[in-house]
Amino acid sequence: GVSQDIDHILEIQSALAVDLGGTNLRVSIVSKAGEIMHMMSKPTPSDNTARMESLLTLLVDASQIATKLNCRVLGVGVSTGGRVNPHEGLVMHSTKSLEGWSAIDLRTPISSALHLPVWVDNDGNCAALGERKFGHGKGKEDFLAIATGTGIGGGLVLNGRLVHGSNFCAAELGHIAVSIDGPACMCGSSGCVEAYSSGLALMREAKKLHQAGELIVDGMKIDTNEIISAKHLIQAAKLGNKKAEKIIHLGGEALGTAVISILHLLNPTLVVLCGVLAPTYVDIVRETIENKALPSARGVKVQVSLLKEPALMGAASLVLEYATRRIY
Amino acid sequence: GVSQDIDHILEIQSALAVDLGGTNLRVSIVSKAGEIMHMMSKPTPSDNTARMESLLTLLVDASQIATKLNCRVLGVGVSTGGRVNPHEGLVMHSTKSLEGWSAIDLRTPISSALHLPVWVDNDGNCAALGERKFGHGKGKEDFLAIATGTGIGGGLVLNGRLVHGSNFCAAELGHIAVSIDGPACMCGSSGCVEAYSSGLALMREAKKLHQAGELIVDGMKIDTNEIISAKHLIQAAKLGNKKAEKIIHLGGEALGTAVISILHLLNPTLVVLCGVLAPTYVDIVRETIENKALPSARGVKVQVSLLKEPALMGAASLVLEYATRRIY
Ligand SMILES: [Ca+2]
Ligand SMILES: [Ca+2]
Ligand SMILES: [Zn+2]
Ligand SMILES: [Zn+2]
Repeated sequence: GVSQDIDHILEIQSALAVDLGGTNLRVSIVSKAGEIMHMMSKPTPSDNTARMESLLTLLVDASQIATKLNCRVLGVGVSTGGRVNPHEGLVMHSTKSLEGWSAIDLRTPISSALHLPVWVDNDGNCAALGERKFGHGKGKEDFLAIATGTGIGGGLVLNGRLVHGSNFCAAELGHIAVSIDGPACMCGSSGCVEAYSSGLALMREAKKLHQAGELIVDGMKIDTNEIISAKHLIQAAKLGNKKAEKIIHLGGEALGTAVISILHLLNPTLVVLCGVLAPTYVDIVRETIENKALPSARGVKVQVSLLKEPALMGAASLVLEYATRRIY
Repeated sequence: GVSQDIDHILEIQSALAVDLGGTNLRVSIVSKAGEIMHMMSKPTPSDNTARMESLLTLLVDASQIATKLNCRVLGVGVSTGGRVNPHEGLVMHSTKSLEGWSAIDLRTPISSALHLPVWVDNDGNCAALGERKFGHGKGKEDFLAIATGTGIGGGLVLNGRLVHGSNFCAAELGHIAVSIDGPACMCGSSGCVEAYSSGLALMREAKKLHQAGELIVDGMKIDTNEIISAKHLIQAAKLGNKKAEKIIHLGGEALGTAVISILHLLNPTLVVLCGVLAPTYVDIVRETIENKALPSARGVKVQVSLLKEPALMGAASLVLEYATRRIY
């Protein structure tokens, strides 16, 4: 009838986008225009079977909600922690925040359950893709996205294409070395930028400071059962705690130092800082570049992402870009 | 006549290849097969006018010798220190070792004097091109060449093409940061790999050691008027000087640390170490990668260049590759 035809005309081309992190598993419906139409979230289960079950359940639910919202789902895009083979839709290996999440074929079970094409990439790469489709990276041929959060990740676009590397571990930005010695990193090495600049690194330092009774300053209140985190360190620094300020400055300087190495290696025009720590670090990163990069590399633009969810947007863009091109 | 025809048949397609470094200015005739048919060398004059005159004189001489050697010169390829715009054949800016060598159009005067097409690129990039045409990089899509010498330079091949960067300062490998603080570098920054691993850095440390009376060990003899250099440090280390050994190890570790950052950023399959310090550093670089790179990045091959003159060979390859393709 007439109303059905109108429904069809009003259908919104959409993607189911998954963000699979160490803390939360989130599934959303993202429209072609980049609008998050619906979002569901669960704590990430700690074993693989439960993780996969939760993921499939959320996706099936999301797909039903999509129908109700008159969204036509073109496919599923997954952003996940870990090293990913995007050709095969496979998580090859993960770090400790996603324990056991290795050699996991995501494409086959999702595709079987939903009868939709499935794309998978790592969260840092997805952040770069999100920036390219909806953010500062639009129309840019060469840029770098840095994802700050619990860890440090990122993605690199060169000549308009994501660089995956010979065995899919390019843009492992968190493990760019900024010190020959330096603090131990979760990866087993030491002196990685992640060991200075990540949320976990700041948490580690915040805890040390708190144990020494040097974290809390006037205007701060921490409950006894509260878990000390990067958030408290940032708050303390803002309230004038010089030691907290110094730790954050070192984190930003380490990130800036890693960025300089990238500038000197690839000389891109743009670096986009994403994630919760981006506003904290951006000025220190700019200052470090100004002080220490080669004059010819200083022209780079460093911008804070304007996207609320770059990785999720990137996961959606995997679908929205590829599904409409009919390239699987 | 008959002899002329035979001459023509026996003509060797060749390039005039220039290597313009801080110490020596060298011009050679390189055959298509990669043989150095003739080589001329002069100390590099310290002012621009004299430099250009010497260069043109040597090139005119070389071109006459080429005729005598029955070499048909297809063009001139120049490897020079400094940042280069290869599209315009222009040296944009140089470091202190080629003082004043900035905003120098090399293509126009050479092309006018010799009536030949002219290609120019920076020495690190030329080393990578030399490896690609005649060395370990043959047939490789993604690899990195590191040039060790007075400074540290290099070139990066991705998807079969040299990466020049948005304003021609990609692969400024010497100024990859390996320390947030670290020793001062000639570029004005600090903690650059060049400040640890270059010939100049080793020279600086050798002089310090010598002044403290701790350089010379049994089996070594240094004349009073001899200039202390990296060579002496390496000799001392080989003869069991533990302090010299430690300095060299730190140099190698710093270079390995820079390589790890590159592996984690780009995940190439091959790194070629070129230049005089390559044999000294190769094992330490491999060991550093083994100890500190992500497991997924450790598979990279690190090889010492087998070419005597990678940069010169790369300068020749600019001619031999492009002239026969008729792309200017
Ligand atoms: Ca990545
Ligand atoms: Ca270079
Ligand atoms: Zn690490
Ligand atoms: Zn430097």
